[in-house]
Amino acid sequence: MPRIDHARLLDDLRTLRSFGACGTGVVRQAFSPIDLEARRWLAGRMREAGLAATIDGVGNVVGRSRNPGPALLVGSHSDTQPNGGWLDGAMGVIYAIELARAFRDDPATRDLALDAVAWQDEEGTYFSFLGSRSFCGDAPADALDRAASIDGKSLRAAMDEAGLSGTIPLRLEPGRHVAYLEAHIEQGGRLEAEGKRIGIVTDIVGIREFTVTFSGRQNHAGTTPMPIRRDAGAALIRFAGELDARFRGLAGPNSVWTVGRVQFFPGAPSIIPGRAEMIVQMRDPENARLERFGAALRALAEETNRAGPVAAAIAEPDDPSEPSAMDAGLQRHLEAAAEARAPGQWISMPSGAGHDAQIMARFLPSAMLFVPSIGGVSHDFSEDTAAADIALGCQVLADAAASILKAARGR
Amino acid sequence: MPRIDHARLLDDLRTLRSFGACGTGVVRQAFSPIDLEARRWLAGRMREAGLAATIDGVGNVVGRSRNPGPALLVGSHSDTQPNGGWLDGAMGVIYAIELARAFRDDPATRDLALDAVAWQDEEGTYFSFLGSRSFCGDAPADALDRAASIDGKSLRAAMDEAGLSGTIPLRLEPGRHVAYLEAHIEQGGRLEAEGKRIGIVTDIVGIREFTVTFSGRQNHAGTTPMPIRRDAGAALIRFAGELDARFRGLAGPNSVWTVGRVQFFPGAPSIIPGRAEMIVQMRDPENARLERFGAALRALAEETNRAGPVAAAIAEPDDPSEPSAMDAGLQRHLEAAAEARAPGQWISMPSGAGHDAQIMARFLPSAMLFVPSIGGVSHDFSEDTAAADIALGCQVLADAAASILKAARGR
Repeated sequence: MPRIDHARLLDDLRTLRSFGACGTGVVRQAFSPIDLEARRWLAGRMREAGLAATIDGVGNVVGRSRNPGPALLVGSHSDTQPNGGWLDGAMGVIYAIELARAFRDDPATRDLALDAVAWQDEEGTYFSFLGSRSFCGDAPADALDRAASIDGKSLRAAMDEAGLSGTIPLRLEPGRHVAYLEAHIEQGGRLEAEGKRIGIVTDIVGIREFTVTFSGRQNHAGTTPMPIRRDAGAALIRFAGELDARFRGLAGPNSVWTVGRVQFFPGAPSIIPGRAEMIVQMRDPENARLERFGAALRALAEETNRAGPVAAAIAEPDDPSEPSAMDAGLQRHLEAAAEARAPGQWISMPSGAGHDAQIMARFLPSAMLFVPSIGGVSHDFSEDTAAADIALGCQVLADAAASILKAARGR
Repeated sequence: MPRIDHARLLDDLRTLRSFGACGTGVVRQAFSPIDLEARRWLAGRMREAGLAATIDGVGNVVGRSRNPGPALLVGSHSDTQPNGGWLDGAMGVIYAIELARAFRDDPATRDLALDAVAWQDEEGTYFSFLGSRSFCGDAPADALDRAASIDGKSLRAAMDEAGLSGTIPLRLEPGRHVAYLEAHIEQGGRLEAEGKRIGIVTDIVGIREFTVTFSGRQNHAGTTPMPIRRDAGAALIRFAGELDARFRGLAGPNSVWTVGRVQFFPGAPSIIPGRAEMIVQMRDPENARLERFGAALRALAEETNRAGPVAAAIAEPDDPSEPSAMDAGLQRHLEAAAEARAPGQWISMPSGAGHDAQIMARFLPSAMLFVPSIGGVSHDFSEDTAAADIALGCQVLADAAASILKAARGR
């Protein structure tokens, strides 16, 4: 089996961290100068690992093995959130480069074809999953033309400034890859809570996000008696309480739902809100359950409208994210590798967060491996993972990658 | 009885409306150039009505009768909200000037002493009830030194710019006034709903306003299982729902309560709120009931803290507004006048909004008269009252003022 070099792995992780380091965190949003600098460094590390590396037209860093035969694509994304942690996608990118080196250094694997990738803009500074969607031909030009950052800068302008406009985006080469593997920090607290060190992802959850708008009548909070009020804020509070109760009745073991934003208008202490808005988001690995959540939400809105005196309107999601199952065969390889390196210290679990693997899974058999997040924290400067867990995750991924490629060769 | 001149009354109201007119509304915030221009015009109208008028050091326009004997102070405020209606306090100011003219024109009342006043900044652009509080010696210099508008301009700077710094604020002259009368639009929909044309105010409600802050743990909305969440937003929704139910059990016939502002932090769809805040305001004419509301709020916060996992903290009001009873004897004069001019078309009612009369009531016997607000709307460009109701209200106020002063003379 290929042997991971812990020191080399951690050195590279720490160097990548230095691009955009901000205290214990990292600020390296897609297409920022420091993101592009990091990508040039990553391309260099891929070349040193023996790969033929290029930065493509959307900023993906793709390192191709020079070996023939069925290839395995391994990677994650190197861009961060506005206030990102140092590991997030960066860890999976450095894992891929370390796998390429470990494969090269081991006579038993040096002839296998392992490609590494650092996807661009998974975090959606301009366009969520830009890199993997572009690579799979799932990023329509008109959608890219419309894409812009929250402060109004267009994706096209960002690509121009990055000097990428003349560069062609790379595409998935038909027949080259047998599978895609991605490692990532868990971003939640389940592994830590259960005392496990490896999570093998069964599914990436689907996401439904609805905006619910309540329309009543704005009025003076002192002079409007309770019986004649049409208080949009009070209606929202009743609605949200009842929705939570109904969702509890429908929930599966991996369901989560969140009201992350609530706004009352005009939002003054002495004014009865005439309008109120909330965003409710549901995530579940099962599409059928997401549909039931959506139906419950619509039913409650209809009841609210029938009962009055405040109207509830639902904005349906125009781009729902469907649940994505990870490949069962690939999971078996990951399970065997995990059991060999950390017996009894791994579990199968869904991913509650979105990942490039959910894009890739529509085009290639795909699988994911999680390592524990300390305190369950991510997308935050304090995000961290124990060094021993970082090393273990990389070794398990390397073992699984080798066994997947060997099995592919054997067919 | 003095006879109100409807045309003269409406002409003056329309002229005052032209200062700061904005479509059907008026923008004439305290100390703005247009507010000061309107005050100079008001002083002129008071002089034409035979009063000795001055603009004092805080911008109050005070018109003193030249007659000896016990005096009655009548008025309201001429400043508006940022998006104000044309009547609000302006109507009560023009009523006072029309009363002075009607008293002057009637041999039976021309020797009575009726003073008119247009208070400054009732709406609190810089300092709520500034004019009446200053007049009563209830505006401490250090509080005025700290006062500033929402965009950071200090009251002192506003007074300097208005050229008032060298002018002395007028004070209530001990022994001069027997009472204070204020007319105002209702600002609610009760008179309209009950088909009445005059409201005689029994009490001005007290106001308690609490900020309730929920502290949980910010986390990823996809990767944090429901059982281990500490969702401050979900805690707020449960709390607000339960609070509403408990308040319903405690409510009196004139209780109102409002959650006018809710904020979730950071307020993103994919982030479990780590902090959430709401402002809950209660109003009631009875202090004991306000105390019970406050106790219920504190008890619920304690229960929330005992139950966990989210902490609730209450910021107590540092300047609660106490309920203020209107003078019973003055109410009898208003009732008799209303019954004579509009038999069966008046009611006694509390005021749910604050008024300068609540300040004055601590220093002088005070009373208020309401006229209907069309659709219950106020603090809005669409605020309006039927012309016939405006005229009726002024006549009832004139009759009551005459009978109050005659009774005072007779003592």
